Amino acid sequence: MKIAIAQINPTVGDIEGNLEKILSKIKKAEDLSSDIIIFSELSLIGYPPRDLLYNPDIVKKIKEVLRDKVTPASQNIGVILGVPSYEEGKIYNSALFFYEGKLLARQDKTLLPNYDVFDEVRYFKPARFTHPVVFNGKRLGITICEDIWNDKDYWDRRLYDVDPIEDLIFQGIDIIINISASPYHYGKRNLRIDMLSYIAKKYKKIAVYVNQVGGNDELIFDGSSLVIDEGGCVIWEGKNFEEDFYVIDTEDIPAGKESNHLKEDISFVHKALISGIRDYLAKTGFSRALVALSGGIDSSVVACLAVSALGAENVLGVGMPSRYSSKESLIDAEILAKNLDIEFRVIPIEKVFSTFLESLNPRGYPVMDIAEENLQARIRGNIIMFLSNREGYLVLSTGNKSELAMGYCTLYGDMSGGLSVIGDVPKTMVYELARFINSEEEIIPNRILLKPPSAELRPDQKDEDSLPPYSILDPIIKAYVEDNLSVDSMVSMGFDRNLVIDVVRRIDSAEYKRRQSAPILKVTTKAFGTGRRMPIVWRRNW
Amino acid sequence: MKIAIAQINPTVGDIEGNLEKILSKIKKAEDLSSDIIIFSELSLIGYPPRDLLYNPDIVKKIKEVLRDKVTPASQNIGVILGVPSYEEGKIYNSALFFYEGKLLARQDKTLLPNYDVFDEVRYFKPARFTHPVVFNGKRLGITICEDIWNDKDYWDRRLYDVDPIEDLIFQGIDIIINISASPYHYGKRNLRIDMLSYIAKKYKKIAVYVNQVGGNDELIFDGSSLVIDEGGCVIWEGKNFEEDFYVIDTEDIPAGKESNHLKEDISFVHKALISGIRDYLAKTGFSRALVALSGGIDSSVVACLAVSALGAENVLGVGMPSRYSSKESLIDAEILAKNLDIEFRVIPIEKVFSTFLESLNPRGYPVMDIAEENLQARIRGNIIMFLSNREGYLVLSTGNKSELAMGYCTLYGDMSGGLSVIGDVPKTMVYELARFINSEEEIIPNRILLKPPSAELRPDQKDEDSLPPYSILDPIIKAYVEDNLSVDSMVSMGFDRNLVIDVVRRIDSAEYKRRQSAPILKVTTKAFGTGRRMPIVWRRNW
Repeated sequence: MKIAIAQINPTVGDIEGNLEKILSKIKKAEDLSSDIIIFSELSLIGYPPRDLLYNPDIVKKIKEVLRDKVTPASQNIGVILGVPSYEEGKIYNSALFFYEGKLLARQDKTLLPNYDVFDEVRYFKPARFTHPVVFNGKRLGITICEDIWNDKDYWDRRLYDVDPIEDLIFQGIDIIINISASPYHYGKRNLRIDMLSYIAKKYKKIAVYVNQVGGNDELIFDGSSLVIDEGGCVIWEGKNFEEDFYVIDTEDIPAGKESNHLKEDISFVHKALISGIRDYLAKTGFSRALVALSGGIDSSVVACLAVSALGAENVLGVGMPSRYSSKESLIDAEILAKNLDIEFRVIPIEKVFSTFLESLNPRGYPVMDIAEENLQARIRGNIIMFLSNREGYLVLSTGNKSELAMGYCTLYGDMSGGLSVIGDVPKTMVYELARFINSEEEIIPNRILLKPPSAELRPDQKDEDSLPPYSILDPIIKAYVEDNLSVDSMVSMGFDRNLVIDVVRRIDSAEYKRRQSAPILKVTTKAFGTGRRMPIVWRRNW
Repeated sequence: MKIAIAQINPTVGDIEGNLEKILSKIKKAEDLSSDIIIFSELSLIGYPPRDLLYNPDIVKKIKEVLRDKVTPASQNIGVILGVPSYEEGKIYNSALFFYEGKLLARQDKTLLPNYDVFDEVRYFKPARFTHPVVFNGKRLGITICEDIWNDKDYWDRRLYDVDPIEDLIFQGIDIIINISASPYHYGKRNLRIDMLSYIAKKYKKIAVYVNQVGGNDELIFDGSSLVIDEGGCVIWEGKNFEEDFYVIDTEDIPAGKESNHLKEDISFVHKALISGIRDYLAKTGFSRALVALSGGIDSSVVACLAVSALGAENVLGVGMPSRYSSKESLIDAEILAKNLDIEFRVIPIEKVFSTFLESLNPRGYPVMDIAEENLQARIRGNIIMFLSNREGYLVLSTGNKSELAMGYCTLYGDMSGGLSVIGDVPKTMVYELARFINSEEEIIPNRILLKPPSAELRPDQKDEDSLPPYSILDPIIKAYVEDNLSVDSMVSMGFDRNLVIDVVRRIDSAEYKRRQSAPILKVTTKAFGTGRRMPIVWRRNW
């Protein structure tokens, strides 16, 4: 049986646009004599649709399109499409199987993830049954995303009591099919290959895995669809972070080659962030982005990512030196802009800053407190938003995860922007990205990588005046935010108790800033944003 | 049986602080010879605890406190306390019943709300059984919040298939007990009385309903606990939006008096917002708030609410006139500040604005576009944040729901602040609040109520230049946001199709601004914020 895999990048809510992609892939699959084509989870509406699932106009549109467009297109080919099914006031996350102009079968999702960024129980009811679908003499075991993530032997601890794959195997299937919208985090693609290879090998079945690709808000989908043979070897992997299309003949599987899943490195995070930027802009109708270039490592990395995503001609760098900026910082920003071949404008903030100080300080001269530090960042925020409003640039904010964790950032200042590109990238990983970017040539001036990080909001300021060294801070942030460890556990890892308490206290108390952050592209197991739901107003007893 | 009702205002996460309240109420109930005392849902940790439920340090603290403090305190009195129960890696939302220094019974919550602002399925497993608890010869039917909201006769359409009340009645109970953390929206308290009276009357049982009170982030709990007799009459209602305590003797129920539940009017919204402000500040350790006074209706109402919440001595009004501000606006703001007896500072933005224009406009004079309109709002944002940072004021932002819906507001400008006080109050309801505030004396100058609303960001600007009249806009916003109606349905209500499409389009496209809003106090059935989960990046087909 010839199975076409359509790894597409849908836009949430855009039923017509997504349909157009779907129909063109169906046509292509037919042209290649495929028996069947498989699309990813909820690909007609795009994942995650959130409360759009309740939007009556969109619901109506989905039903019309399925009836009038998708069903007829299945005349000569089987089509497995991920869509929401509406039935008696309930919604199911379904794989619909169309063939010969009819709905042949429907398999709903059994396991509904409702943790981290997922809210599926909010929207969906679980499947009431899981049955193989017989097609062309083959028994297909159709599952949806989470359904495949619950093998009792693979996981030390399972999240659910049932395993749809085990159920299907028990009923007898020939091929495991999984349609997914599995958001990326660093390590996820390797984990997925490892897990799916395990299952294919365990049950001695071919596994065909079709994942969504592209960015939707803070989530980035890596694609990386898979065909795995009965021995657990990867036969084919879809492109990472790009659309792809492939036809596999299950009767003529190529020899299993060595899996390449050990190769997930920082380049994946790099690609992820690029596709996150690209899609955020493209899908909101922006073509140009603006990055405030301080001459520091964070804004340098963001500018490089923006150029890779949008092209140099669509990126504007803005330098906004103050009385506390070092000359080197502005020079480094200029060199970077030159290396990237982007437009660079310099708008000094001194005049506005002194005018503010005159209005706000009785004697007109600075008193050098946090209010004045933040004021400088906010003047810069005003300038970039002015340029955004006037010239149509989307502002990319440049704060990293370590800063956002500690609240070492200014609300309405450097936090301004439509998208937080590296808000889930710890500072130490920002350096990794910078070294990766510079691996072939020196794009980011080396001096930027070597000098101690500074916000330059007062004379001779260094990050390490206010923060622990990042090499110590980042593992504590990971332990607390990603791994949810207790203070005692962190201390037993070797960290100083007072330091741990100080860091945890600061992470807790900066929640009010993060609540007003731009959406943060997720690349770790736990990003600030919808996946971490903390109260702002709360008190911890120490 | 003498039942004490403890309507308390817990702080989320503050196990020690909440425990102190709980122990003092237990003592008080004992002193009044109560047989039993009842606390609200999750009162030891405070509702909603969100991901703090996973915090290992807090989990440990809860277990310690229950063992060492709560259990011993139950020596001579039954204590029903709402706490999370941790069992085999799962969490239950429980009512624990302590008596004679032992855990007598545990009833977990059966119906877990997972819509709007609720995420309970994310955290909790449902109860595996519902049984009456026998105490002092009485059979108590203990239920938790949502458990009581699913009567098949009361509701046209039920959310769940099971009804714990029906189950308990079938098993035989004497008294219905419900512990709740039921967030307020306008109309909720009446609905609750109506619903609970119906159930008490239907089953001919006394109902004792204990609700949380106070504000936690965007949610405001109204208290309004209830004792309802077997005939469905309200015997006692706890204070609205204040802590309360009451002992009812079920053997000596006073005569049922006429229910007062028809009296829920705008004064409830007024009280709700005041308690929302008060708790947001008190629980985060702020005592003083700042309101930017434009001389318009929104900031005037917010200032009045702030004074009621915090006292005049703790509220600072700041007037920031520009070249486009009318003289009347500043005068009106001054009069308001005088009427409220609050400090009022005037910081004109002209100098900073012109300095900005010099930096940003090649020729130095304004071009009057959206960038410059927003710039003025952002300069004001900078000033109030400066005062906040320097002097320790929490900034209350003053945008209303109609503006936030339409994106008629400036990100990092007038949207700046720690708490959005009236972000869920439609403009027409802002006027209702203003009239209510002025009902005894003219606190808000009448001219403010009479003049046409204006942002005063360009000469002779009026809201109605950019927006439909609020009397038409607000019902459309309600129809779309609160009632989730289709465009066709809105048109069939009598609204012009093009107008509906324009409004819906603008609501959809302003999502990116709202995502960066301060938490918005919820007072309607659907507020912008955690209860409405919309993608930013999406496309609708028209």
